[in-house]
Amino acid sequence: MSLWMETPSVVVDEKRLLQNIDRMQELAILNHVNLRPHAKTHKTREIATMQLAAGACGLTVSKPSEALQFLRGKVPGLASLTLAYPVVQSKKIQEVLQTAQEVNVEFLLTVDSSEGVDAAQKAAETTCCILKLLIHVDVGYHRVGIEADDPKLLQLAQRINASSSLEFCGLLSHAGQAYRCKSVVECSEVAETERMMMVRIKNMLEANDIAVPVVSVGSTLTEPARKDFTGITEIRPGNYVFLDRTPVRMGLFSMQDVALTVLATVVSSNKYNFIVDAGSKVLSSDGARSAGEFGSTCYGLAFYHKDFDRVVKEPTQNKTVLEDGQELICFEVTSLSEEHGWVKKIEGISSPTIGERLVIVPNHSCVVSNLTDSLYIQGKEPKSWTLLSRGCTM
Amino acid sequence: MSLWMETPSVVVDEKRLLQNIDRMQELAILNHVNLRPHAKTHKTREIATMQLAAGACGLTVSKPSEALQFLRGKVPGLASLTLAYPVVQSKKIQEVLQTAQEVNVEFLLTVDSSEGVDAAQKAAETTCCILKLLIHVDVGYHRVGIEADDPKLLQLAQRINASSSLEFCGLLSHAGQAYRCKSVVECSEVAETERMMMVRIKNMLEANDIAVPVVSVGSTLTEPARKDFTGITEIRPGNYVFLDRTPVRMGLFSMQDVALTVLATVVSSNKYNFIVDAGSKVLSSDGARSAGEFGSTCYGLAFYHKDFDRVVKEPTQNKTVLEDGQELICFEVTSLSEEHGWVKKIEGISSPTIGERLVIVPNHSCVVSNLTDSLYIQGKEPKSWTLLSRGCTM
Repeated sequence: MSLWMETPSVVVDEKRLLQNIDRMQELAILNHVNLRPHAKTHKTREIATMQLAAGACGLTVSKPSEALQFLRGKVPGLASLTLAYPVVQSKKIQEVLQTAQEVNVEFLLTVDSSEGVDAAQKAAETTCCILKLLIHVDVGYHRVGIEADDPKLLQLAQRINASSSLEFCGLLSHAGQAYRCKSVVECSEVAETERMMMVRIKNMLEANDIAVPVVSVGSTLTEPARKDFTGITEIRPGNYVFLDRTPVRMGLFSMQDVALTVLATVVSSNKYNFIVDAGSKVLSSDGARSAGEFGSTCYGLAFYHKDFDRVVKEPTQNKTVLEDGQELICFEVTSLSEEHGWVKKIEGISSPTIGERLVIVPNHSCVVSNLTDSLYIQGKEPKSWTLLSRGCTM
Repeated sequence: MSLWMETPSVVVDEKRLLQNIDRMQELAILNHVNLRPHAKTHKTREIATMQLAAGACGLTVSKPSEALQFLRGKVPGLASLTLAYPVVQSKKIQEVLQTAQEVNVEFLLTVDSSEGVDAAQKAAETTCCILKLLIHVDVGYHRVGIEADDPKLLQLAQRINASSSLEFCGLLSHAGQAYRCKSVVECSEVAETERMMMVRIKNMLEANDIAVPVVSVGSTLTEPARKDFTGITEIRPGNYVFLDRTPVRMGLFSMQDVALTVLATVVSSNKYNFIVDAGSKVLSSDGARSAGEFGSTCYGLAFYHKDFDRVVKEPTQNKTVLEDGQELICFEVTSLSEEHGWVKKIEGISSPTIGERLVIVPNHSCVVSNLTDSLYIQGKEPKSWTLLSRGCTM
């Protein structure tokens, strides 16, 4: 099936991708919330189109340059875009706002500081548009956002509400601390803590006569684990389209849901390791997360092509007997240089030969897609998709 | 000076870059060896041109796709190109060999297996060209290469020598274990071990009537520390053009030699951290290497713009009094998400305000240049250089 692909390449299984898109959309419909997927995971017009066609209300992006790519990218069905980043440079905001107006797409920006509101207001005034703002709330991750009890939160909301060039649209959070969880139960707890904080702030603002139409939360780790959606209007998972080792190790998904892998060729072999042609320039140097002994310090798990479709859970050792009675071999990518993946040889398990190909499940698919210019699509026929917003860091 | 630059951006100081190029060229001339810089560090036509103009004998690249970019890139003065990677796919070799012929550039490939020689021979025969090969020797890094005492080494050299479509040109090594060193003395030892192994193999091959015109070694960490160049014909450092925290922490260079930095803006602030707009998508998630307590688990050191030019050694604490009697403030980038750099706040040291810019010295400049499409050049006038081989993983 994959013989037409060169290596190392980032491969997306189309069937698994579609299943992932449908499953998250069903979860949103069932719980009466909008789904606004984070496009930074896939960075492609094709997958954005599939998400919107499935029912997503819009997209989320992470930087002004990424917003511009999606706005100018002629994505069918794109009606609304949220830039979930505290941009403090007015010129950048202005360019995105202007472009959104030109292509008739609703644009929402997050803020978490008076400097951010200054920049937003200047951009709106220069453009003569009304700019829609969401206040980013820190629900315990302590990255960006205003803490729930900070009086600045009400002050900023009041200031935005009073401005003729800004429109206060609501609240947004990202409980990134879920990536430190070790189980589904812990993910549920993080999701509920997030929800309760957001609802409390919403009530506080409404008690101060500020309407809060949007309460936007979530990630791939919190949404499938969330038990209560009351008070939430929107969820913003991103990683769910591809998945990777983290949500599988957490117990949220099966290995058979993982839609993004790296195809690599064995290029060298010595006493200690065999070497594949995928290094940190393909897999990234992001480490493994979540619980587990085996594979907890490695950069990906490597499988023989013939075996990969049979893997349900992440293996806990190099050789496993699966339920079908057959052996499964799994190698750890123990070290990376830029162009080389070091795979530890295992006594009693024969290593692949030079020229043989392996399927590698990476630790973190969002960073893998940022390293490639195109994705190879494993589907009915050979095709590839070009990334729209790779390298959009500004 | 840098007000025209957007953030986050990868900035190259032109003056420091030129000094680094000249210094390594002088070292090569002084020791009567050729310098064949590894272009994977900078990936640009402009810097390659500067290296060749300074006296480099050719370039080194790391993948077939990178070789094609440099061959097709109309690099003035490029007469010879070494692909220092054990490519085992014949089609890839064929394309590079054909392109090299078309643009009249000498092309050398490394091999470390009979599968590699098979692929090379097939490519040469299909192209009706003679393909020049270097055998990659494992001098202790245990990544790729044949170990010194492996009888396969002589067998492969004899096979190449006997083939009418292949030409045996010599030996190549990379003592990557130097990146595990903690001092200049340790780097010297690695360099001497590498040299002695290479000379021993050269003598062994010559005793078997195989000429060894090329003995190519080296890295940015071994060459400035090398005490004896006897028997070596060529050195291949790459990182020396930019440098980064690793060679500075090792004591091989001054912080004032570091030519590549990341310019970032503070976008958010909370009780614990302030957040800059450079995350793993700019700095990469490569960790710190070499000795030292302070900064040994961080992803880069952040300085105020006004301070950076005064830093000679890597600071060992957040606040230092320099020789000029003035205070130097240095922050650690303690954590990264894709778009966010987490910088730890320090009690008693005031944090930069939102909107302020910082200069970040990264852990590893080669991976930083792979993440950006262009470099901002800090020089006499605003300019930027587009990368020629970013993302060339295949």
